[in-house]
Amino acid sequence: MAKLVGIIMGSDSDLPIMAEAAKVLDQFGVEYEVKISSAHRAPEVTIEWAKGAVERGLEVIIAGAGVAAHLPGVVAAVTPLPVIGVPIKAGALNGIDALYAIVQMPSGIPVATVAINGAKNAGLLAVQILASTRPELQAKLVEYRRKLAEEVQAKADKLQQLGIDGYLAQKQQG
Amino acid sequence: MAKLVGIIMGSDSDLPIMAEAAKVLDQFGVEYEVKISSAHRAPEVTIEWAKGAVERGLEVIIAGAGVAAHLPGVVAAVTPLPVIGVPIKAGALNGIDALYAIVQMPSGIPVATVAINGAKNAGLLAVQILASTRPELQAKLVEYRRKLAEEVQAKADKLQQLGIDGYLAQKQQG
Amino acid sequence: MAKLVGIIMGSDSDLPIMAEAAKVLDQFGVEYEVKISSAHRAPEVTIEWAKGAVERGLEVIIAGAGVAAHLPGVVAAVTPLPVIGVPIKAGALNGIDALYAIVQMPSGIPVATVAINGAKNAGLLAVQILASTRPELQAKLVEYRRKLAEEVQAKADKLQQLGIDGYLAQKQQG
Amino acid sequence: MAKLVGIIMGSDSDLPIMAEAAKVLDQFGVEYEVKISSAHRAPEVTIEWAKGAVERGLEVIIAGAGVAAHLPGVVAAVTPLPVIGVPIKAGALNGIDALYAIVQMPSGIPVATVAINGAKNAGLLAVQILASTRPELQAKLVEYRRKLAEEVQAKADKLQQLGIDGYLAQKQQG
Amino acid sequence: MAKLVGIIMGSDSDLPIMAEAAKVLDQFGVEYEVKISSAHRAPEVTIEWAKGAVERGLEVIIAGAGVAAHLPGVVAAVTPLPVIGVPIKAGALNGIDALYAIVQMPSGIPVATVAINGAKNAGLLAVQILASTRPELQAKLVEYRRKLAEEVQAKADKLQQLGIDGYLAQKQQG
Amino acid sequence: MAKLVGIIMGSDSDLPIMAEAAKVLDQFGVEYEVKISSAHRAPEVTIEWAKGAVERGLEVIIAGAGVAAHLPGVVAAVTPLPVIGVPIKAGALNGIDALYAIVQMPSGIPVATVAINGAKNAGLLAVQILASTRPELQAKLVEYRRKLAEEVQAKADKLQQLGIDGYLAQKQQG
Amino acid sequence: MAKLVGIIMGSDSDLPIMAEAAKVLDQFGVEYEVKISSAHRAPEVTIEWAKGAVERGLEVIIAGAGVAAHLPGVVAAVTPLPVIGVPIKAGALNGIDALYAIVQMPSGIPVATVAINGAKNAGLLAVQILASTRPELQAKLVEYRRKLAEEVQAKADKLQQLGIDGYLAQKQQG
Amino acid sequence: MAKLVGIIMGSDSDLPIMAEAAKVLDQFGVEYEVKISSAHRAPEVTIEWAKGAVERGLEVIIAGAGVAAHLPGVVAAVTPLPVIGVPIKAGALNGIDALYAIVQMPSGIPVATVAINGAKNAGLLAVQILASTRPELQAKLVEYRRKLAEEVQAKADKLQQLGIDGYLAQKQQG
Repeated sequence: MAKLVGIIMGSDSDLPIMAEAAKVLDQFGVEYEVKISSAHRAPEVTIEWAKGAVERGLEVIIAGAGVAAHLPGVVAAVTPLPVIGVPIKAGALNGIDALYAIVQMPSGIPVATVAINGAKNAGLLAVQILASTRPELQAKLVEYRRKLAEEVQAKADKLQQLGIDGYLAQKQQG
Repeated sequence: MAKLVGIIMGSDSDLPIMAEAAKVLDQFGVEYEVKISSAHRAPEVTIEWAKGAVERGLEVIIAGAGVAAHLPGVVAAVTPLPVIGVPIKAGALNGIDALYAIVQMPSGIPVATVAINGAKNAGLLAVQILASTRPELQAKLVEYRRKLAEEVQAKADKLQQLGIDGYLAQKQQG
Repeated sequence: MAKLVGIIMGSDSDLPIMAEAAKVLDQFGVEYEVKISSAHRAPEVTIEWAKGAVERGLEVIIAGAGVAAHLPGVVAAVTPLPVIGVPIKAGALNGIDALYAIVQMPSGIPVATVAINGAKNAGLLAVQILASTRPELQAKLVEYRRKLAEEVQAKADKLQQLGIDGYLAQKQQG
Repeated sequence: MAKLVGIIMGSDSDLPIMAEAAKVLDQFGVEYEVKISSAHRAPEVTIEWAKGAVERGLEVIIAGAGVAAHLPGVVAAVTPLPVIGVPIKAGALNGIDALYAIVQMPSGIPVATVAINGAKNAGLLAVQILASTRPELQAKLVEYRRKLAEEVQAKADKLQQLGIDGYLAQKQQG
Repeated sequence: MAKLVGIIMGSDSDLPIMAEAAKVLDQFGVEYEVKISSAHRAPEVTIEWAKGAVERGLEVIIAGAGVAAHLPGVVAAVTPLPVIGVPIKAGALNGIDALYAIVQMPSGIPVATVAINGAKNAGLLAVQILASTRPELQAKLVEYRRKLAEEVQAKADKLQQLGIDGYLAQKQQG
Repeated sequence: MAKLVGIIMGSDSDLPIMAEAAKVLDQFGVEYEVKISSAHRAPEVTIEWAKGAVERGLEVIIAGAGVAAHLPGVVAAVTPLPVIGVPIKAGALNGIDALYAIVQMPSGIPVATVAINGAKNAGLLAVQILASTRPELQAKLVEYRRKLAEEVQAKADKLQQLGIDGYLAQKQQG
Repeated sequence: MAKLVGIIMGSDSDLPIMAEAAKVLDQFGVEYEVKISSAHRAPEVTIEWAKGAVERGLEVIIAGAGVAAHLPGVVAAVTPLPVIGVPIKAGALNGIDALYAIVQMPSGIPVATVAINGAKNAGLLAVQILASTRPELQAKLVEYRRKLAEEVQAKADKLQQLGIDGYLAQKQQG
Repeated sequence: MAKLVGIIMGSDSDLPIMAEAAKVLDQFGVEYEVKISSAHRAPEVTIEWAKGAVERGLEVIIAGAGVAAHLPGVVAAVTPLPVIGVPIKAGALNGIDALYAIVQMPSGIPVATVAINGAKNAGLLAVQILASTRPELQAKLVEYRRKLAEEVQAKADKLQQLGIDGYLAQKQQG
């Protein structure tokens, strides 16, 4: 299967967070590229990578960056593909700077922004985008959602059975 | 052509902003549904509408809401389709409340958030998502981007020609 | 005695905080239900639980959630009972997102919001609501308040007696 | 019918907002007292008023104040009744100061906080609190909710019929 | 010498910070009272204490509190003495709530606010207020300022002598 | 009577706000100097003015400034007198920048900060500081407070008499 | 004289603000280029313009942009020249987004940030940078500063002469 | 070679951060002075140091300070040299107070502000300013930028080779 998603991040310090996006794609059997680049320290490589994305067969890009997080916007500026932006928590402002720098894109060039450090949800959103024309992937999503609900139900049942103190005691051991 | 995008908003006071999303879809020849509903005042109709989205043939949903903006998240919770959230500027907090309530979704249920009042970009993002598997739509996007760059160039040329004072004078005349 | 209060939370990670609400209810001899559910991962179970609250005899609901905290609002949308919302400190924004997402509810569907992580006060508020028509509970509240004032007085006396250094030294040992 | 709700505000500049709470109580046929007082300029009258609330037969208090909004907390400190706090938008910080000063109450003395300028919801919350032991009031609430949903439905129908442009045109005409 | 300053705080958890105010007063030989009370848990004792301040011979009050920090304002409301407010860092908002709740006092009742956790400066401000009519105290202040400048100079000299690396190395040992 | 208070501001655009401080001093019969200077555009004149304050007989200084409001701190750095800082609302940040730049002074040099645009309270605080050793001024303050409470009472009485609608109608005419 | 400064902005809506930078340069007799471009809508032209800056003889660049203001950072990434960034007030966040997106640049690629809408100061900073090796320009700066101080002095004198009421009356006239 | 850059900071607690600016200057072979002073505790020494900067041959000043960070502005007020301000993360507000107090300088006296704790970038910006008229320094900057891009490329290559898990494993050992 061809690589459909490109994951790019501004620094290898973002990798532990961005790895969660990759993990979700693995779970859904979606192939992807991973790239460390930087809108500021390596602007040309970044732009070249983003410009070639359509040709390489990508359908969605996930871009994560911290502080003055320009990477998602710079990538979005040179590709017609949907770009999902992940604000990374870093520095004194705890990711609010990254959130604003990613979500507040001007008219014409949107970035689909998820929560601060929300790389897992970025992966899921990429799957949802791919799935809207791939029924088998959408079926997997429906199944994934069913399991989420089941997990919540299992916790609800356990709480009913153990009570608050019992639940907390077991969790602490856990 | 079938309706591919659903636009939903929490109140008719959001309509002047959300109309910009519809206008972009019109420009790209993408058909859409429009709906006023409310996660709080009409929760059941909202959920029913969102649950039927796949079956009605929708591929993307755009949801706009202000203040404690739960609508995009509530919609996203009951459909596997990608949901684009538009925080609407309203009330004393100028849309920061809506931004946080939309973008900070917990693990499992992402919402693709755009800028506060960024309905136009929500429309463009919907087109980009649809376009990733529709070459003719992607071509239109490339053309759209080309025109954006041309408009910037035209302004740059005019500024070169008129100078700052001349440009501002002409702009004021309208 | 029948269960008068329902406590619901979005995730079992909220349980250590929400347990403080339960503890207050225990202190006042008020019976309660506890539930883990999620507005996003298990929307239907959540709504069903909230819709049945009146019939099950509940008079107040306490709902706690973090980040884009939709749970209290989603519950409030489907029950006429007063809903007390507890914003849970979680993620990069330290609970400000949860506070805004809970307190800034639109016209028609209020949520009675307490402080970030203020589950203990949520429990007290539930007791106050129940007590307004139950004199014996109100008497307990008056007594509780009297003890609060006594505790403050005891500290004031100790400080008078030990001085600042003595007080701090004893506190450190304690 | 006896007066069940006390409405108190820190200044007569808060009255246009706080009047919305009174209006809701009128709609539901709930009798109430109204009072202008001030935690800072008239602390003793304020405390005396709050201390006598139970004896006067009140079951809920609604307190609105702006900037360093101490009134709701000062009232809550001297009555066992549930106190609903309304942060009023005023001054350079647009009500964020009032929101924090009301919602962040310390352990022991909760204030049930609603949105900035959310006096209408404060009135509804008071009704919900009273209604939890008054079936006829709860029935009115259920009816009120039904009408809210109907109004949303009416707007949705109108939008379906007129389209976006038609709806906006009609709205502008008033 | 009579007690000229009253130090009051909302909780004994504020004592480690507020002790810095007392320490400064000790340094300047200014006598003071210390009190733990609470605007919310012990409102009457608090008001009684503040009301008697003039009669007890106090000339300045220092009041420290965290979160919805009403104590300084409540004290200021019942005494004509200047009240210095110390916002204490506590809870999820790191003291911004306390800062706003103290500094944003409405017209008529000012509180002289210092930095978050700025109890040392509160002590110095109290000394400055007392000193404006006590030349011997003002002389001590001038001397204190001279020493502050000397300490800065000593560090500047050491840095000149040791260089950055040397200075940092010595500091780490120190 | 000698001039006891110095009022200084960073720009004549601050004068309409700072005039409220002067007006309060007039009301209490306290003499004062007024000065426009600037910590940045006229640093030496500013410092000279502040350094001479004690010798000129001043006992309190009120300093108002907007944006990066350094004036109060710069003045406080060169005089032992208590300095009251007034953050002026100006520019894109609405006075939050001025508030932080004034209140967050480092250890050693406090500024007694009042609310954003709180010049009236700055005047009152200056009177309170002067009054702590001047019984006749303190008596005036007690009288002033009594009138504040009376005004509140008059409004409360009017509201009782006219009701909400009547009060608002009269206010609108007034 | 050669053009030494390049002024670039993201949109012609920024021109009224950015014109203040040009005006300052005119005052100091410094030649400059002006350019409208966009990091997002015309990324390639922007980069080409910035890359050629050294060769065209520029020594400083001033870049202004609003919302997710990437322009200054994108320019800084491809030129070794000092880049001065001007956050433009625009959109729901009043320029805080632009400030963070410009000032919080990651290690390696600084942007010299001035105040929100601080284009005049950007022009002055450019002059200061050029002046550090051009004595005649530095002399002009010293003269400019002298005039600033004189203007402040003139206002101080007028206030002394007219008093507060007289000054405000004259100011209102115009 | 003469000293071209002056580094000044408000306290020796800022030295570990400000040392990064010095380190960058060392890397580029630029000589500098280092100074601990304080706008508040040693205002006169600070002003004297800044006033003599041009005469001592400095061409750029880097000034770092935390909380109510007046140092950069105070220095900028008395020298025509470009002043680079470094907001230091300190206290309850994590450096936002310092950022606002440095960047929001009023018209006439700019400070070139870098990121919170961005001392390394302050050093680079100083080099860029010096380099605009020193070709050999500009060449070093171009080389420095080339190395930054190389480092990014090396990380990108390593990620390609090792994959995410391999990269993270190696990093952890690292």
